[in-house]
Amino acid sequence: MTQSRKKIRAAILGASGYTGAELIRLLVRHPHVEIALITADRKAGQAIESVYPHLTGLGLPDLMAIKDVEWPGLELDVIFCALPHATSQEIIKGILHDTGHGFIDEMIIERPADYANAIKGSVKVIDLSADFRLRDTDVYTRWYGEYHQAPELQKEAVYGLTEHYRDAIKAARLVACPGCYPTAALLTLIPLLKDGLIQKDGIIIDAKSGVSGAGRSLKEANLFTEVSEAIHPYAIAAHRHSPEIEQELSRASGDDLMVTFTPHLVPMNRGELETIYVNLTDGQTVEDLRAGLINAYADEPFVHVVAEGVVPATRHVRGSNQCLIGVFADRVPNRAILVVVIDNLIKGSSGQAIQNMNIMFDLPETLSLEQAPLFP
Amino acid sequence: MTQSRKKIRAAILGASGYTGAELIRLLVRHPHVEIALITADRKAGQAIESVYPHLTGLGLPDLMAIKDVEWPGLELDVIFCALPHATSQEIIKGILHDTGHGFIDEMIIERPADYANAIKGSVKVIDLSADFRLRDTDVYTRWYGEYHQAPELQKEAVYGLTEHYRDAIKAARLVACPGCYPTAALLTLIPLLKDGLIQKDGIIIDAKSGVSGAGRSLKEANLFTEVSEAIHPYAIAAHRHSPEIEQELSRASGDDLMVTFTPHLVPMNRGELETIYVNLTDGQTVEDLRAGLINAYADEPFVHVVAEGVVPATRHVRGSNQCLIGVFADRVPNRAILVVVIDNLIKGSSGQAIQNMNIMFDLPETLSLEQAPLFP
Amino acid sequence: MTQSRKKIRAAILGASGYTGAELIRLLVRHPHVEIALITADRKAGQAIESVYPHLTGLGLPDLMAIKDVEWPGLELDVIFCALPHATSQEIIKGILHDTGHGFIDEMIIERPADYANAIKGSVKVIDLSADFRLRDTDVYTRWYGEYHQAPELQKEAVYGLTEHYRDAIKAARLVACPGCYPTAALLTLIPLLKDGLIQKDGIIIDAKSGVSGAGRSLKEANLFTEVSEAIHPYAIAAHRHSPEIEQELSRASGDDLMVTFTPHLVPMNRGELETIYVNLTDGQTVEDLRAGLINAYADEPFVHVVAEGVVPATRHVRGSNQCLIGVFADRVPNRAILVVVIDNLIKGSSGQAIQNMNIMFDLPETLSLEQAPLFP
Amino acid sequence: MTQSRKKIRAAILGASGYTGAELIRLLVRHPHVEIALITADRKAGQAIESVYPHLTGLGLPDLMAIKDVEWPGLELDVIFCALPHATSQEIIKGILHDTGHGFIDEMIIERPADYANAIKGSVKVIDLSADFRLRDTDVYTRWYGEYHQAPELQKEAVYGLTEHYRDAIKAARLVACPGCYPTAALLTLIPLLKDGLIQKDGIIIDAKSGVSGAGRSLKEANLFTEVSEAIHPYAIAAHRHSPEIEQELSRASGDDLMVTFTPHLVPMNRGELETIYVNLTDGQTVEDLRAGLINAYADEPFVHVVAEGVVPATRHVRGSNQCLIGVFADRVPNRAILVVVIDNLIKGSSGQAIQNMNIMFDLPETLSLEQAPLFP
Repeated sequence: MTQSRKKIRAAILGASGYTGAELIRLLVRHPHVEIALITADRKAGQAIESVYPHLTGLGLPDLMAIKDVEWPGLELDVIFCALPHATSQEIIKGILHDTGHGFIDEMIIERPADYANAIKGSVKVIDLSADFRLRDTDVYTRWYGEYHQAPELQKEAVYGLTEHYRDAIKAARLVACPGCYPTAALLTLIPLLKDGLIQKDGIIIDAKSGVSGAGRSLKEANLFTEVSEAIHPYAIAAHRHSPEIEQELSRASGDDLMVTFTPHLVPMNRGELETIYVNLTDGQTVEDLRAGLINAYADEPFVHVVAEGVVPATRHVRGSNQCLIGVFADRVPNRAILVVVIDNLIKGSSGQAIQNMNIMFDLPETLSLEQAPLFP
Repeated sequence: MTQSRKKIRAAILGASGYTGAELIRLLVRHPHVEIALITADRKAGQAIESVYPHLTGLGLPDLMAIKDVEWPGLELDVIFCALPHATSQEIIKGILHDTGHGFIDEMIIERPADYANAIKGSVKVIDLSADFRLRDTDVYTRWYGEYHQAPELQKEAVYGLTEHYRDAIKAARLVACPGCYPTAALLTLIPLLKDGLIQKDGIIIDAKSGVSGAGRSLKEANLFTEVSEAIHPYAIAAHRHSPEIEQELSRASGDDLMVTFTPHLVPMNRGELETIYVNLTDGQTVEDLRAGLINAYADEPFVHVVAEGVVPATRHVRGSNQCLIGVFADRVPNRAILVVVIDNLIKGSSGQAIQNMNIMFDLPETLSLEQAPLFP
Repeated sequence: MTQSRKKIRAAILGASGYTGAELIRLLVRHPHVEIALITADRKAGQAIESVYPHLTGLGLPDLMAIKDVEWPGLELDVIFCALPHATSQEIIKGILHDTGHGFIDEMIIERPADYANAIKGSVKVIDLSADFRLRDTDVYTRWYGEYHQAPELQKEAVYGLTEHYRDAIKAARLVACPGCYPTAALLTLIPLLKDGLIQKDGIIIDAKSGVSGAGRSLKEANLFTEVSEAIHPYAIAAHRHSPEIEQELSRASGDDLMVTFTPHLVPMNRGELETIYVNLTDGQTVEDLRAGLINAYADEPFVHVVAEGVVPATRHVRGSNQCLIGVFADRVPNRAILVVVIDNLIKGSSGQAIQNMNIMFDLPETLSLEQAPLFP
Repeated sequence: MTQSRKKIRAAILGASGYTGAELIRLLVRHPHVEIALITADRKAGQAIESVYPHLTGLGLPDLMAIKDVEWPGLELDVIFCALPHATSQEIIKGILHDTGHGFIDEMIIERPADYANAIKGSVKVIDLSADFRLRDTDVYTRWYGEYHQAPELQKEAVYGLTEHYRDAIKAARLVACPGCYPTAALLTLIPLLKDGLIQKDGIIIDAKSGVSGAGRSLKEANLFTEVSEAIHPYAIAAHRHSPEIEQELSRASGDDLMVTFTPHLVPMNRGELETIYVNLTDGQTVEDLRAGLINAYADEPFVHVVAEGVVPATRHVRGSNQCLIGVFADRVPNRAILVVVIDNLIKGSSGQAIQNMNIMFDLPETLSLEQAPLFP
């Protein structure tokens, strides 16, 4: 990598959400990326510092509405799509011409033809929404209540769980980054299921997340006064990350399986912890589980099994792309308790997206993601 | 109850902990109680307001060291014992003369004979420590690492889970109030096991607690900077409340059972939430569970099953003696998810202790516990 | 006061805000009040527990829209008005018939005539909004950007700073409860100015408030993620409580004065602390200030000067109607630093309103306000 | 700067405090620094990850006790001294041989002779304690209650307020980094006093700090349960940062001056905000103040005057080395309100220390300090 390398020109669609802001925060430190476009329909025309004062003085372009973007001159190499669910599908379909005739809904994109010029056959899309995560579009419809708008693209989308789909990500044109809860759950469970160390039945994922996972949208439930000094579960047995977790665990185990998944809202900004209860397969021990995980992630820069006796805590990964996994024997025989932590906005979202970008552009995977966690 | 009733003279031993402070806060509003004695060995001689400025102007006596108490003149009717584990046993043994010769460890209590005068055959003791909760003193030794100092007293101690041992509490001389985690778990699970609605195997209790549960002792782990903006489990498969939960669930189910129990520390002062995963017995439905719980607590002032669709949250009970239980179907067939919340310092400790006192003195059970929760 | 006293029938208009909820929480414990009506236009038809689950099981009527209230049968004795600014004026004008012909804006109140029946010549109104706090309606217009809708009523409104207007409150038909910031500032400064102990110039009030002061309305600035782990001032030199503070301090000092006032938003639910910087008048000492304040509040149940060396903290008054004041010498000669704390939702709002009600109905002033602070 | 540059070998004495941990967190990302030594007497022999799990996997040496350090082989270029007050003096005296005979207290340093080998005539010391901040050792004694142990060294120590002592820092052997409160106050006030824009009298600094400023030491006052949901001032008119602020402001104004300074503890981990009240000099306006500050910091990478209408908040600088200053007119004529924010652990401590190191070693000043703030 020489200093003279031409920079990767990146766009961030939906830059006014927390995920978009986090992409900016991380990418401005990336030695090989320049941010060429940031959009936010409702904040169009504003400087990013008026929306996010912590992102002041970074030399970024002003926010635009997607419909006003002059795509041809941008010469984009990569587009991060941090838009709401459903919106992403249509935008990305337009960008990637999947229909063969470039037609997209004019209600949303008024000048679809422009997309053609943006592509030059090579633009890559990294989607942070849920729109391309579910391989079966019927499952998508069932959980999101809408028909999928780009089923052809769904077929080529690569599920962006970096450590488990690295090769496919490298070759991908469209990467669908996992949800924050699935990221933590899958990193923990896939190796164990692949190796047959745990039973397919009876997996229980009790998840706890900081409030930034809910985004910056105005909901009474996310007011400081409602969240502070309190904890509660939500979307019990109904959270949209459930099918995503089950899809990938089923692939890993070679069998359709269901999990019990309960997310909780914790009075903290960032961080996600999952306490996962599993049944061992016959003859396996907790040491086997630990060894299996250590082996699976031995060469990984961001996923680590903590030392015996250490308990992962979200403060150990705050502000970083790290994922820490702990393995504990239950008192109940043949059961184990797994504890996994990530920063939901980084490894659970924007950090993993950049990790994928690094792979897609043949860069060192850790670029712009090396910062040690912020504590306290 | 007339205004002229003679007041119950109460002592609070160990008043400098959060539990002791909470007893004071609640009891000073009790129409039939006067606080005659408060002790705190390391704060002896101080006014309570110098230890707890929020308890200013309540007309309380100064804190004393236990060894300096002049018991004879106190004419106590009830003693709340909010001392550390192990300490409680010796003190209470001395108070209740259980050995028949009034002998207690002089290292701790220098003038044991004085206790005799305090009793007048009738003083009642409400212990908030773990010292008399475990019916089997061998189990006590296994979990607390010490021999029980008053096994005879253990036999007469009544487990103070009010709603399930009300009659025994009424007749008791010594009540051992449950731990905070057991209180929430047992209120939820005992009726279901008694009615055979859920299986004895596979019960998983994922608990989340505010920091006040750790008391006011100086530990790095409880510093603001360590706890804030973070969550982590602790004492995984090793928490001392496990045997207490199992003891009572085994009694309810008629069979020895084990539970999986994982507590987590949440960045909030008060509140405790347990997410409990259970397997239904054949033919039972979630509606049956709900009906069973509603039926069990139909006449209870402090335990309520929330309406369908409502999710219990700790903020709904903060500062009150309420316990709220929600019942939810899992997506996985034949499984249910129970959510229970209490204020760990009130229903989980001092409030339940006072509720028991009211019963022991034939008073309306809700006296001094009627305050609606504090929100926000 | 005998048990057989007929209960005071109270209405709470605007019960879906935090102030309204706090009125309910406190009043349900009041031995001489029954809540006959609670309104919330946007939540009309709902039970209060669906809006505030912590207020479950209190036997309250469902929420109504004001326009649908059948006033005649209610036989109200007191109306607490916890409505937004400007709205209060019109509603109260209708209720109190101030115009002489009962005419009120039909856009807001569709059936004004009904009010007549509610009154029976004696209904009392306690307004928690800012609508009747400013004695000069021109000042109101300047700060609130609207003409006052009930200038005649303004003339009879009594400023409800309990400790300083007790007699007028006793005789009042309409009490305008002070804002939270003015309550703390005025309780501290009025005695000092009246006694000529401090200079009229150079008073600086640096205020810090919990987030509940902003109400339950949906603003990005009040999201957990925006407030948590942060502090910032707001409305610098432009907060609407400034003219209210200056009005009352000018009366106390006999001279028009201005103050510097800067509020800050603190990541906590409740509590308000003001650090007040003053210049002593010639010959006065900090001891004189302390003595003056002690003397002023010697007989007050809710306002206390803390002991020398004690620093007031919001946690000392959380959940209570207490106000604590500390007096400190500055290092800079002839200057003093005053520190005052209240719970903004109680002494700063609903608690003071109930204290006023107790006075207006000749009840012991502390009724339903006796609860000791909640800590931790 | 070429890649082949020999790395600066750095030691961090006192690495187990939050300041030391933050030095590590930032320095491990520095392209030209290698951490050769970390010490912590009470944690000697431990890996840093057992003390700070967030600093796992960084390839650092284990913690040592200072007395066991084998200085000769270390070939240190720079020593960051993050030790408690008073301790620093003796250690640094030993390192820098200031007495001419290398004698230091053997109670603390058992092998003083070893220091000689560490120096090679050129080791630089950056002290983060208060030990060398006060130019007048009598003032030190008055505020810290002890005689200064290295008055000769005090004479050569450079006060490390980077933006105002850059040239002296460049040439210094010993830099005394400012306290967190002084950093924010001085950056705001020095230019205004130097330019004669504000009066020397009547400066009031109302400061609010996160809890990390109190370090990791075990004090009841810093427990989560004591701090959360609360605010309070401390060390009123008695904080040790007062003389430091006054020393530098007196130099800037050419006159001895005193300030009123009141720090408050805010329930957040990081961040510091100061609200500063000043009187304008005759003929000056708020616009003049703003212009003066903009001019003073026009070329600075880390100090910025925010746009008119923007209010600085600690969340805008969290996790960064930024300092933001806002200028506001008071309603009271001829007065202004200044608001300044920093991250107390970075610009207020470890970040500024590294900024100074960059200057001392002729490196780009922003190295390892470029990370944008972490929000939310």
